[in-house]
Amino acid sequence: MENELSAPDVVICECFARDGLQHEAQFVPTQAKVNVIDAFTAAGFRRIEATSYSHPVRVPAFSDASDVLAQISRKQGVAYKATCPNRRAVERAIADRQAGHGAEELSLLASASESHTQRNLRTSRAGQWTRIEEMVELAAGRFTLVGVVSMALGCAIEGSVDPVSVAADVAKFAELGVELVTIGDTIGAGNPRSVRRLFREISSAAPGVKPIAHFHNTRGSALANCMAALEEGCTMIDSAMGGVGGHPSQFSYGGEGFTGNLATEDLVDLLEAQGISTGIDLDAMMKASHLCEEILERPLHSMVARAGLATQALGAKLDV
Amino acid sequence: MENELSAPDVVICECFARDGLQHEAQFVPTQAKVNVIDAFTAAGFRRIEATSYSHPVRVPAFSDASDVLAQISRKQGVAYKATCPNRRAVERAIADRQAGHGAEELSLLASASESHTQRNLRTSRAGQWTRIEEMVELAAGRFTLVGVVSMALGCAIEGSVDPVSVAADVAKFAELGVELVTIGDTIGAGNPRSVRRLFREISSAAPGVKPIAHFHNTRGSALANCMAALEEGCTMIDSAMGGVGGHPSQFSYGGEGFTGNLATEDLVDLLEAQGISTGIDLDAMMKASHLCEEILERPLHSMVARAGLATQALGAKLDV
Repeated sequence: MENELSAPDVVICECFARDGLQHEAQFVPTQAKVNVIDAFTAAGFRRIEATSYSHPVRVPAFSDASDVLAQISRKQGVAYKATCPNRRAVERAIADRQAGHGAEELSLLASASESHTQRNLRTSRAGQWTRIEEMVELAAGRFTLVGVVSMALGCAIEGSVDPVSVAADVAKFAELGVELVTIGDTIGAGNPRSVRRLFREISSAAPGVKPIAHFHNTRGSALANCMAALEEGCTMIDSAMGGVGGHPSQFSYGGEGFTGNLATEDLVDLLEAQGISTGIDLDAMMKASHLCEEILERPLHSMVARAGLATQALGAKLDV
Repeated sequence: MENELSAPDVVICECFARDGLQHEAQFVPTQAKVNVIDAFTAAGFRRIEATSYSHPVRVPAFSDASDVLAQISRKQGVAYKATCPNRRAVERAIADRQAGHGAEELSLLASASESHTQRNLRTSRAGQWTRIEEMVELAAGRFTLVGVVSMALGCAIEGSVDPVSVAADVAKFAELGVELVTIGDTIGAGNPRSVRRLFREISSAAPGVKPIAHFHNTRGSALANCMAALEEGCTMIDSAMGGVGGHPSQFSYGGEGFTGNLATEDLVDLLEAQGISTGIDLDAMMKASHLCEEILERPLHSMVARAGLATQALGAKLDV
């Protein structure tokens, strides 16, 4: 419990319950979602992506958004996040908040590329900012808002993305009063050099913003990219237990399992082994990891879940 | 062909044919080994681990060591390496060299931990250095010798390993005139911080040595660890196509596929995407990657082989 009192070096947002589950073929029962979120809370995560207020017909995986938020066991100091793709989603989030079981954080989606915006968010880049402004106005003061810039280190359709343009998007969020902005390497095409360059641009264009590294491990480089982000002063990282979810495979970037999130287990182990504190209890984290595998009824992609924690392998003689 | 004329920023040793194949259950036919090594040569690798002069009964995978070395197509400027576990192995290497088809490089194995030395090399740490001295004397002047310190970033039995002791082992190699020393993270328990610390110790204790990063990707951290090594001035990395092989699973660090080498495809793609030259032709590398999967008749562990090259995904607009 001691860790919960002091601020960790890095705050990790556990994204399994939303980004992880979004593309699962089978609906995960509400009780199972509640159980994993409670396990994440028990393990000491301070930020947990719990659900999405997506249209329940378009994204049936989260048709139980309000129920999940109502049933989880809350802990002081833990922020539960819900994704809001549009104005209607924010209205639902407000209603849940007023009913006493809402999310503390809402994420608002933008895309760094015109082609991806049209294809995925069904609007233009100009249109997406109008929509985000409306959503921010509606949510005003009730939530911590988290901007998201997807395709920030490469676009599935357009290829490379100009870091200056991404930094300008982050600055737009800042102008709207949104001070947490998620930098999404949606197709996992970033590298330590491009991460450093982008994070420097961001810190120059929007010095008041805390960027959140949300790097997909599509090509195995997410841990290296996170280390580069940390070296540039980033202190917040998104990951998902078992590395499930992330970018769907529709753009032919490999099949299931190769488009996914960075596995929380692998990230936390690597940070803690370096003496970079996360506030997370490693044993409780591994219990949550097993629970995620049980719920999805298959082995997931964390390598630490197979090989064991490095912090444990190095034993008591760990020199940090 | 242009790349072959200028020195790359990082020289990668392709280890599939030896470290990769060592623990395969089925014997890989000599012709298949020759074909993959020729494909590596064609792709522009300057160092290729070709085989091992292990005892043919104890390690039947390499009972064809001399045949492989005799049948591969050599290219000017490419060094083919063979592992030598003992004095008899060096004698065989010398005989092949005298017959005109030997290896250019021999690797000589040491282990950083007493327990692992006794278990894996069947001698004590003191005993291993006596044996290495004899092997160096025997090989004198005929080969480029490559020292190997395994368990350098953690031991499967003893846990953490003192970096000062590893650096002293590297210095011992240097005293024997061995100026290339492989730093093996055999159980994949290293992290960027421990890598930096170790490589600084090495550069202080043995400034004349060029360390070679040989990091297993057991916990997904090998790319991050390689980046840390490069930042400490390392310019040589070992990896294996498809990430096969590496440390056997006998120490219960996970099952097959979770103890393995860093996949060359993922490493080269990440380096090239950052403008760090390897001299390797990416198309030819991916052809070699497919050939390795054909020969082993299963998909291997390169994520780039599934997801596609980042350098390609970022397209012509790649900004390096």
